[in-house]
Amino acid sequence: MPQLFHLPVSPACRTVRLLLGEKGIEPALFEERAWERREDFLRLNPAGELPVLVEDDGTVVSGFWPLVEYLEEKYPNPAFLPQDVAERAEVRRLADWFSRKFAAEVSEPLIYEKVTKRFMTVAAGGGGPEMSVVRTALHNIRYHLDFVCYQMEERTWLAGDYLSLADFVAAAHFSCLDYVGDVPWNQYGPAKDWYVRLKSRPAFRTLLADHVPGMPPPRAYADLDF
Amino acid sequence: MPQLFHLPVSPACRTVRLLLGEKGIEPALFEERAWERREDFLRLNPAGELPVLVEDDGTVVSGFWPLVEYLEEKYPNPAFLPQDVAERAEVRRLADWFSRKFAAEVSEPLIYEKVTKRFMTVAAGGGGPEMSVVRTALHNIRYHLDFVCYQMEERTWLAGDYLSLADFVAAAHFSCLDYVGDVPWNQYGPAKDWYVRLKSRPAFRTLLADHVPGMPPPRAYADLDF
Repeated sequence: MPQLFHLPVSPACRTVRLLLGEKGIEPALFEERAWERREDFLRLNPAGELPVLVEDDGTVVSGFWPLVEYLEEKYPNPAFLPQDVAERAEVRRLADWFSRKFAAEVSEPLIYEKVTKRFMTVAAGGGGPEMSVVRTALHNIRYHLDFVCYQMEERTWLAGDYLSLADFVAAAHFSCLDYVGDVPWNQYGPAKDWYVRLKSRPAFRTLLADHVPGMPPPRAYADLDF
Repeated sequence: MPQLFHLPVSPACRTVRLLLGEKGIEPALFEERAWERREDFLRLNPAGELPVLVEDDGTVVSGFWPLVEYLEEKYPNPAFLPQDVAERAEVRRLADWFSRKFAAEVSEPLIYEKVTKRFMTVAAGGGGPEMSVVRTALHNIRYHLDFVCYQMEERTWLAGDYLSLADFVAAAHFSCLDYVGDVPWNQYGPAKDWYVRLKSRPAFRTLLADHVPGMPPPRAYADLDF
């Protein structure tokens, strides 16, 4: 059974768990507080980042870009990159948009302020959230929800008529923000419809069962009818 | 002829130019001051980042990860990702190391302080370099040069016995820092030997001919014997 070192409220980790689930692979999950820089973990991934996948044969795969490409290459059924080279580039562009731009403008600051800081010592920068940072991120999320609504005007899924890596990356980010109650879904109908379709998939179930100690999710978090 | 929107002292742009050159494709180059957020450019790439490739058939490819994967898929000869799935993940891990970790710790701050700020108005944050930022980046570069030397103890190229994407990403970063005279090559013999081998390749030539207006490179920049 492959091992996945992860954190529950991490968009990159959730993306990889969704892809593994969709491909029928159930890894053993190990929570890793990456910021504690545990030596054995740094030996697995000197960059100190999550997620890290360790295969049964000892192969270690880390880094978001390398890991999602690895899963597509190693476990191609079902595939979440299309066949056409230009379409693959478009799927990756949207995946990259969420994994870097949305991350920088919305999910990294929100998750850091509202989740990560709870588990850090005051000396290491832990404590209550910086509300000005939270407000800026909550302002930014609206542009990205508009973007999802815009894509849904002519498409079934983010990159076209097929479910792709782009959908899983975006949904992984939104699901983390949903855990802390920060997505104004009801003002963005087409984006909500898209998210409901993803949330209904079996692979989403284990994510929705995650609980961060001392921080229960809002009631609508695991509901399909929210 | 494909068009490449780029900046001369940008590691991501240089990586793509090196890959195109190695694959025998000579794009028309257009310098784009991405920070000016020109409307026609934002229509090409809403993320506002460089490089952006426009193919003869109108296909637009942007984003570093999507673009390097696109080049490997569209122009597979010569290939800079190996065949084996686990080895491909290792090449991508090293490429990702330089394109994110090295970028954050060394090349982005150095290039921003020493090059980009020259072309920005004072109101937009332009001006002379912040020397404390420069000093930190110059401190950090040593760990990465040690890492290259360490890899060279048992390998011919960064990821193994074959020239790969990882070498081009790393060399593109170092060549930008070389332009501003910031790589202490002579204290890192094995890294220097590796870089000389890359610098000798024909695809490197056009990079070494680049000149930033008002900012000539140091004399050793284009020399193979430095």
